[in-house]
Amino acid sequence: MVKFFGVRELLELLRILGVEEFLSNLIRYIRDDYLRWEQFEKIARVASHSPQGVIELMPICDDELYTFKYVNGHPVNTQSRRLTVTAFGVLADVRTGYPLLVSEMTISTALRTAATSALAASCLARGGSTVMALIGLGAQAEFQALAFKAGLGIRKLQVFDVDPAAVAKFNANMRGLGMEVVSAGSIAEAVHGADIVTTATAAKRNAVILTSDMIGPGVHINAIGGDCPGKTELDRDLLARGRIFVEYLPQSRVEGEIQQLSVHSGITELWEVLAGKRPGRLSAADVTIFDSVGFAIEDFSLLRYLDDLSKTMNLHREIDLVPLLEDPKDLFGLLRALPASQPQRAGRAG
Amino acid sequence: MVKFFGVRELLELLRILGVEEFLSNLIRYIRDDYLRWEQFEKIARVASHSPQGVIELMPICDDELYTFKYVNGHPVNTQSRRLTVTAFGVLADVRTGYPLLVSEMTISTALRTAATSALAASCLARGGSTVMALIGLGAQAEFQALAFKAGLGIRKLQVFDVDPAAVAKFNANMRGLGMEVVSAGSIAEAVHGADIVTTATAAKRNAVILTSDMIGPGVHINAIGGDCPGKTELDRDLLARGRIFVEYLPQSRVEGEIQQLSVHSGITELWEVLAGKRPGRLSAADVTIFDSVGFAIEDFSLLRYLDDLSKTMNLHREIDLVPLLEDPKDLFGLLRALPASQPQRAGRAG
Repeated sequence: MVKFFGVRELLELLRILGVEEFLSNLIRYIRDDYLRWEQFEKIARVASHSPQGVIELMPICDDELYTFKYVNGHPVNTQSRRLTVTAFGVLADVRTGYPLLVSEMTISTALRTAATSALAASCLARGGSTVMALIGLGAQAEFQALAFKAGLGIRKLQVFDVDPAAVAKFNANMRGLGMEVVSAGSIAEAVHGADIVTTATAAKRNAVILTSDMIGPGVHINAIGGDCPGKTELDRDLLARGRIFVEYLPQSRVEGEIQQLSVHSGITELWEVLAGKRPGRLSAADVTIFDSVGFAIEDFSLLRYLDDLSKTMNLHREIDLVPLLEDPKDLFGLLRALPASQPQRAGRAG
Repeated sequence: MVKFFGVRELLELLRILGVEEFLSNLIRYIRDDYLRWEQFEKIARVASHSPQGVIELMPICDDELYTFKYVNGHPVNTQSRRLTVTAFGVLADVRTGYPLLVSEMTISTALRTAATSALAASCLARGGSTVMALIGLGAQAEFQALAFKAGLGIRKLQVFDVDPAAVAKFNANMRGLGMEVVSAGSIAEAVHGADIVTTATAAKRNAVILTSDMIGPGVHINAIGGDCPGKTELDRDLLARGRIFVEYLPQSRVEGEIQQLSVHSGITELWEVLAGKRPGRLSAADVTIFDSVGFAIEDFSLLRYLDDLSKTMNLHREIDLVPLLEDPKDLFGLLRALPASQPQRAGRAG
C-alpha cells in the first residue's frame, strides 16, 4: 500500500501540530537536505507549455529516495475561480522503484516556499531583525508571515497590496496569530524601517515592485514572486547593489530575478552559505537578496518530512496504487483471484 | 476532486466488463490516438538510473489532455518477491492544468501493451491467422493471449518457457478462457506452424530467442521483450530479413530490437501504416516484425479510456488531491476553516 496525504490529512496535520511547529520542523528538513547538496542528482524539470499555461514535472533523488512534483501554472484559472497553481508529489524508494507516498502539494508548496525563505533569511538577514515588509498579499502571504515568525522571531508586519480585498483577507487570516500587522498606503511606506522585505506579487511580467531608493542599508530582500521567464519584481539597479543568493544557479538564471543580469555577475548558491563554503552577509550594511524560484530539493524535504510524520502520527490514508502479489510473475493471477461478489468500498464516487 | 482507480477498482472494472471486452475497447482507443499522431507533443521521457534500476516519467499531451506515467524497472525486485515493473499514471486537463484522474498502471500497462500488440498485428499479420506461438510466459503472457483472441480471433497458442513453473502458471490461468494451449518442448517446436510469434521473455541482455531459420515465410513477429538498451530477443539475420515496424523511431533506436541495426535501415512507424501513409505487409510471404518497446501514447489512450469509463460506470473513488477554494487567493483560509473536531475518515491507515 502507498501512503496518501490528501488535502484533508494535510490540514489535520497542520491543525494538530500547529502551522508554526510544522514550519519550524520543515525548515530543519530543508536545511539538512541543502547541506547534502552534492548527494542529489539534479534532474532537469520537464515542462509542457500550452496557450493557457504550463504543466511541469520536477524530479530529484539521492541514493535512497526519489521524489517528483507535478505542478501547473495557469494564470487564466482565476477567471473560473480555480487556483493558478496546483501541485501534488510522490516519494519513492530508489532501491525498489516502488512509490511510497503520494501527497497533495498545493498547500505544501506554499509551506515549503515559506520555510525556504525563512531558512535563507536566517543566515542572510541581520541578527535581531524584527520587522518585515510584505508586498503582495496573495496565496503565499500568510505562510511567509508565519515562517518568519517561527524561524526568525519576526513579530511586526508592514503590508501592502494593490487589491484592498487581499489586504482584508490577510488581516482576517492573521488575527489571533500573535503578529502585529500594519497596513501601508504604498510599497515605499510598507518598506520603510523594515529589516526584511518579502515580495510575493503575482506580477505577470517584468514589473518593478522595489527600486533601489526604497531600500536602506542592511535590508534583506526575500523575492519570491519573480519565478519564471519574463516575470521579475526587482529593479536592475537594486540587483546590482545587493549581494544575491539563489537556490540553483542554472535554474535561477532562467527563472529568477537574475535573468535581468549578465551571466558573469557573482551570485552565491544558498547551500554554499549553509555549508560555510562561501560567505553570506559580510557587513551590517549589506543589502542581501534571496532570489527564490523554488527548487526540487525543497519538495523532497517536504515529502520526507511527511513520510516521517506518517510513521509517528498515523494520520494518512493508504491507497492501493501498486498490486500486492504472492508471485510477482503471476500478474494475471490477480484477475483469477477476483471474488465474484462486490467488495465493500469506502469513499466510492457518487 | 480527482478520480482514482486503484488496483481494486481496475480489477472490478475487468471483472464487470470482462478482460476481452476491455482489451477490444482499448485497441480502439489506441488506434484512434495513433491516427492523431501529429497532434501529440512527444516529450522525452526523464529517466533516473541507480545501481538497482531505473525510475522514469513518461509525459505526453495533445491540445486537450496531458498524461504522464511513473514507471520503474528493478530486476533485483524478484529476489524480494516484488514486481520488476510497477507503474501509475495521471490524466490532466491542459486548459486548467488540474489533474483529473490517477490510476494504477501496473496491470494497465500489461493491458495496453497487449492491446498495442494486437493492434499492430491486425494490420501486419496475414489475414486469417489463427495460431500464435508465445515464447516467455511471464507477467505479460496471458494479457497478450487474450488481446490476440479479442483483436484477431487467435484460438490456438503454442507456448514455451524455460521455467516449468511459468508454464504451469500460464496453463492454470488460461483454463476456461476459450483458447487451446499446447506446451512445446522448445522454442523451435512452439514456433513451428504458427502464423504469429510473440516473444515476451525477460532476457536481461542481447539474447537470441528467435533465429531466422525458425521462421517460415509469412510469419508476423510481435517482439515485446526487447525494450531497453542492451536487451534484445531477435537474431540480426532475422531483423535483416523482416520488414520492421516500430512505435516511435527515436525511442526504438535506443530501446528496441533495432538498436542492433545501422541507423540507415528502412523502418516504418506504426501510425504511418494505420493512417495509410506507408504500406504494412506487402505480400503473404513477408516476414513482418513489430519491434515494440511501449510508447506514451498507449498510456494516454488507457487513461482516456478509464476516464470515459468513469463517466458511465462510476466504479472509481475520488481523492482530494487538489483543494477546493471559495477564493483562489485565500489558500490560508483552508486552515482557518478547519473544524476543531476530527472528521470521520474512511480508509484510515492502521
